[in-house]
Amino acid sequence: MSSFTPNQADDIAIATIRTLSVDVVGKANSGHPGAPLGLAPVAHVLFSRFLKANPKNSKWFNRDRFVLSNGHACALQYVLLHLLGYQLSLDDLKAFRQLGSKTPGIEVTTGPLGQGFANGVGLAIAQAHLAAVYNKDGFNLINNYTYVFAGDGCLMEGVASEAASLAGHLQLGNLIVIYDDNHISIDGDTAVAFTENVEQRFLAYGWQVLHVNDGDKDLAGISDAIAEARKDSSKPTIIRLRTTIGYGSKAQGTHGVHGSPLKADDIAALKTKFGFPPDQTFLVPQATYDFFAEFGKRGAALEAEWNSLLAAYGQKYPAEHAELTRRIAGKLPENWEKSLPVYKPTDAAQASRKLSEIVLTAIIPELPELLGGSADLTGSNLTKVKNSVDFQPPSTGLGTYAGTYIRYGVREHAMGAIANGLHAYGGIIPFVATFLNFISYASGAVRLSALSGHQVIWVATHDSIGLGEDGPTHQPVETAIALRATPNLAFWRPADGNETSAAYYIALQSKSTPSVLSLSRQNLPNLEGSHFEGAIRGGYVLHEEANEDLTIVSTGSEVSIAVEAAGKLKAEGIKTRVVSLPSWLTFDQQDQQYRLSVLRSGAPILSLEALSTYGWQKYSHEQYGLTGWGASGPYQKVYEKFGITGSNIAAVGRKVVDFYKQKGTPVVSPLVKAI
Amino acid sequence: MSSFTPNQADDIAIATIRTLSVDVVGKANSGHPGAPLGLAPVAHVLFSRFLKANPKNSKWFNRDRFVLSNGHACALQYVLLHLLGYQLSLDDLKAFRQLGSKTPGIEVTTGPLGQGFANGVGLAIAQAHLAAVYNKDGFNLINNYTYVFAGDGCLMEGVASEAASLAGHLQLGNLIVIYDDNHISIDGDTAVAFTENVEQRFLAYGWQVLHVNDGDKDLAGISDAIAEARKDSSKPTIIRLRTTIGYGSKAQGTHGVHGSPLKADDIAALKTKFGFPPDQTFLVPQATYDFFAEFGKRGAALEAEWNSLLAAYGQKYPAEHAELTRRIAGKLPENWEKSLPVYKPTDAAQASRKLSEIVLTAIIPELPELLGGSADLTGSNLTKVKNSVDFQPPSTGLGTYAGTYIRYGVREHAMGAIANGLHAYGGIIPFVATFLNFISYASGAVRLSALSGHQVIWVATHDSIGLGEDGPTHQPVETAIALRATPNLAFWRPADGNETSAAYYIALQSKSTPSVLSLSRQNLPNLEGSHFEGAIRGGYVLHEEANEDLTIVSTGSEVSIAVEAAGKLKAEGIKTRVVSLPSWLTFDQQDQQYRLSVLRSGAPILSLEALSTYGWQKYSHEQYGLTGWGASGPYQKVYEKFGITGSNIAAVGRKVVDFYKQKGTPVVSPLVKAI
Repeated sequence: MSSFTPNQADDIAIATIRTLSVDVVGKANSGHPGAPLGLAPVAHVLFSRFLKANPKNSKWFNRDRFVLSNGHACALQYVLLHLLGYQLSLDDLKAFRQLGSKTPGIEVTTGPLGQGFANGVGLAIAQAHLAAVYNKDGFNLINNYTYVFAGDGCLMEGVASEAASLAGHLQLGNLIVIYDDNHISIDGDTAVAFTENVEQRFLAYGWQVLHVNDGDKDLAGISDAIAEARKDSSKPTIIRLRTTIGYGSKAQGTHGVHGSPLKADDIAALKTKFGFPPDQTFLVPQATYDFFAEFGKRGAALEAEWNSLLAAYGQKYPAEHAELTRRIAGKLPENWEKSLPVYKPTDAAQASRKLSEIVLTAIIPELPELLGGSADLTGSNLTKVKNSVDFQPPSTGLGTYAGTYIRYGVREHAMGAIANGLHAYGGIIPFVATFLNFISYASGAVRLSALSGHQVIWVATHDSIGLGEDGPTHQPVETAIALRATPNLAFWRPADGNETSAAYYIALQSKSTPSVLSLSRQNLPNLEGSHFEGAIRGGYVLHEEANEDLTIVSTGSEVSIAVEAAGKLKAEGIKTRVVSLPSWLTFDQQDQQYRLSVLRSGAPILSLEALSTYGWQKYSHEQYGLTGWGASGPYQKVYEKFGITGSNIAAVGRKVVDFYKQKGTPVVSPLVKAI
Repeated sequence: MSSFTPNQADDIAIATIRTLSVDVVGKANSGHPGAPLGLAPVAHVLFSRFLKANPKNSKWFNRDRFVLSNGHACALQYVLLHLLGYQLSLDDLKAFRQLGSKTPGIEVTTGPLGQGFANGVGLAIAQAHLAAVYNKDGFNLINNYTYVFAGDGCLMEGVASEAASLAGHLQLGNLIVIYDDNHISIDGDTAVAFTENVEQRFLAYGWQVLHVNDGDKDLAGISDAIAEARKDSSKPTIIRLRTTIGYGSKAQGTHGVHGSPLKADDIAALKTKFGFPPDQTFLVPQATYDFFAEFGKRGAALEAEWNSLLAAYGQKYPAEHAELTRRIAGKLPENWEKSLPVYKPTDAAQASRKLSEIVLTAIIPELPELLGGSADLTGSNLTKVKNSVDFQPPSTGLGTYAGTYIRYGVREHAMGAIANGLHAYGGIIPFVATFLNFISYASGAVRLSALSGHQVIWVATHDSIGLGEDGPTHQPVETAIALRATPNLAFWRPADGNETSAAYYIALQSKSTPSVLSLSRQNLPNLEGSHFEGAIRGGYVLHEEANEDLTIVSTGSEVSIAVEAAGKLKAEGIKTRVVSLPSWLTFDQQDQQYRLSVLRSGAPILSLEALSTYGWQKYSHEQYGLTGWGASGPYQKVYEKFGITGSNIAAVGRKVVDFYKQKGTPVVSPLVKAI
């Protein structure tokens, strides 16, 4: 029945994958040999018979995407990349887990469990969306599959459960997950904690569920299952593949082979078992290289064919072609930023979440690469612009795959990880939305976004005690500093309309940096002195005074309170500058001279923010903010309770000025440092 | 068939719950009327017919626990608490969502979706465990049920999926979840994002699944389902209850009634519909008070009966009685701390995760209230002490419910939320474990732990780039500052054995503060000058020098590097103090004089930590640490790459000393502040 007849070359190739994986981990004396040994057959079948990719151009746009969600098995993937002819030499394999080691051909960074699974859902959404937008009769330009390997650990993680439920709803037929059902996790047999019926769960999500009972040896069964999975275009597929962890090791089938190199005698015995000389390391039979050379040829031919198709598409659909290739290249259209709104102080006060909606309304027609969505807070986040269409399976009657607005449901963590996948696919800039406080649910995905350089824009509304009655469970305190301390993440807290435009401008220009736009629920006035050019530098002087007695530095909804305090102080003869510092990351990237002109020496600097004061010591001498949790009540009352009012901040400012006058020594900017 | 015959008093009571909920939200002009209107019948049936509780003593230990996981429906719960006779007056109801409003009789703080569901699993584990430990023939002392209301949002959240899978594995027959299947979430009909088969999913987890098709009116059906759920003691139960959100409102069945007060005319019409005068607010018929007075009588009688049983138990089992009542009172046994290990500098270097294991091994025999566990990293976290028994359903043959070690599986977020439930139950101090980096997966639960004052101890190992080869995906950078900035959370990073003992000591004494113990993978020497008495103050002078040129302040695995640097500097004539600051929270609680003696004026203070430098500006003039992500490689090489070595820190110290000498002005402690 099967179209697949394994031959000796397959056996040798699989043995090579296994022995090489063991050597890679052994040489590093660190790593995970168990999963590579168990997954070698399926990896071999998938890559040699199904996967569409060109090793000479790992960025070919219509390649199949492969995600190793159980990323600790990465020795397997590096070995395959080497054998398939990617830019990864045997010497590179020998540098596994060493400083500076290379990782070409990796679609997404995995390791933290469950992330890759959800990234895969994002990759599959991206394919479905771009296909719906750009494919035409006779031009099936974008039609790749997304394959994901996932282990027990991935399937236990909530982020994967969330993503699986959404993938089922979205009927992502191009998504194929291979579940390494090896019954072992770090704590031993999965019987200790993971006894649910995984097949039934995925049926409940609306997936196609297949299984292969002998993943160690049944190559034809594996091939048939993958072929079957590819046939059903109306459902994502999970193939439960029963494997033996550490297959070939003396300790196979136990957690002893999970995360430590095999012992020397075990490696020798394993090599002998698989017909390899026990005393040689990093041995690749020429037959295996030859075998995989076919993969490279096939991939190069497929890409060449696709390039011709794309060229013909360009003849027939020049506008679509231009847009698609621009998007693939990651270039924004010319002059898009001219659509960003500009405000005068006389313009009406608005919540910055509303200002964000105005920006989105203005730029979405210019930027088709924006694929938005919210974790079930659309009406609060204000992220769905008028007339936009939902990204939905057409059968639901609720939208189409060409739609640009994703209903993520109450699934913040999956949303973050899916957005990473959307960006990794290319041609898409995802924006996602929730309350600022609930980014904490997605922390695992956000940090990978920053680490991997995914341009994901978080629209994070209700960003302080200013949300009022929902109370401390919903009022962020520590969230901002957690995000600011995340390397390569731009946390923006704009104070008004011009700053909101600036935040979007930089977020959209930053191709490998995620941004969090922290936005208010409550109305904010457009400020005298606020300007786009200052805000895009991350910080600027909003209100200047010569020979000041005090500078107040603030962000977002508190800047207008700082301005009010400065006015009161001025009336008392205390000259007070006001600095707005919407993005620390961006400000830190400015030259030292500019930064010292904004936060200058000569007078004390007081920070003001309705969030934790942690971190502000870097930019100020004194800090005013929250030192505990928020409170439930109408927001004005909550602000009063915590003393964040113009009159109290003026009083605090007076105290600060007096203190530094009494101290009598010159006041030096906190930016002046030895190191 | 049903044993339940609803009467007119039930109808009036339900109408009262509905009209009162609407008034509560209306008076606040803020809140969520939809779910209270839909859930009033089930709440009424549950509380009036099943729930075992004494309104006059909301802390009675064997009460049934009720958790409103869809916490936005809290108007419903407050209304019930009032009607049932808890310490919550009509005036208190009128202060809903205002500053200082009261919340008696609430088992756990919910709101962030999915948390309450997982808290409920924790409450159910606690009951099963304490019952297994203390119940005896004829003394069914601990036998309460845990009831959870959950909505669509809760069931979409990964934290609930994780907890549900574990609850099924653990066969928690005392857990009954009522799922408010109202087909509406904030984005509208659940058809837009949540179309999975929830019943099938819970069957896959091993739950008993029941449903009631008309939750709006079928009181007998509701009662029968709850009775049925209580019968099966081998499985948790979920009852899918089909309700109409906002039942009685003109906009019932739409998301328009979810999160905004009803309009005045709608409220009037609703009251008329339910037989209430349309123009009166906060009306409670005397018949309803009378009806619920029975509940109070029943509860008081049940508690009195239980108190007698407990007294008789004390006669027969004095030792168990003493231990149980001590645990219920939240008191630690006398002199338990004498079992904490003490170290000398000549003791062997060990990883602090190993030092933690030594502490646990010493104290677990003294503290039966410790209920530990790990998210599938037991062998790495070193949290399972020898001879401890797993908490498992006896049928698995893997442990018993009396066991004290929980196999959480790879479910960090559920673990955190379950631990909150374990603590909320009483009599238990939970400790949970994962890598420090993966606490980020559980952030949503950790912040509620701190906000609600749950004594949960996180054993967070592999706490820096010192974990080496697993690389930046596993190396925390921003995690420590995120936790330090969380109010009421004690983040401990002990440097050696004595400091590890101190961290456990304070964590165990802090009855309403969660602690995170940040522990190394790599070995750390026991330090000259380290002592318990200093460490329990959160910070102390490890190495003193008179008239110093420099102070280096550090934590954890970097303290010994600071000591090495100080030694090198001394050889060059630069006198360098070393301060160890294992817990900022604890240090901040010391008096100003002590703090200023530790981080004193007179010489610059340099901080050193292999983590983000954010936050350290509060305690130091200059900061050395990570400004980006870590790297993969053997840990010594990674430390070298980032310059965290004795010789480089000595060089940095020299630079700092020169800089402040050139500056020429007196160096003032960063703790000296105006505000």
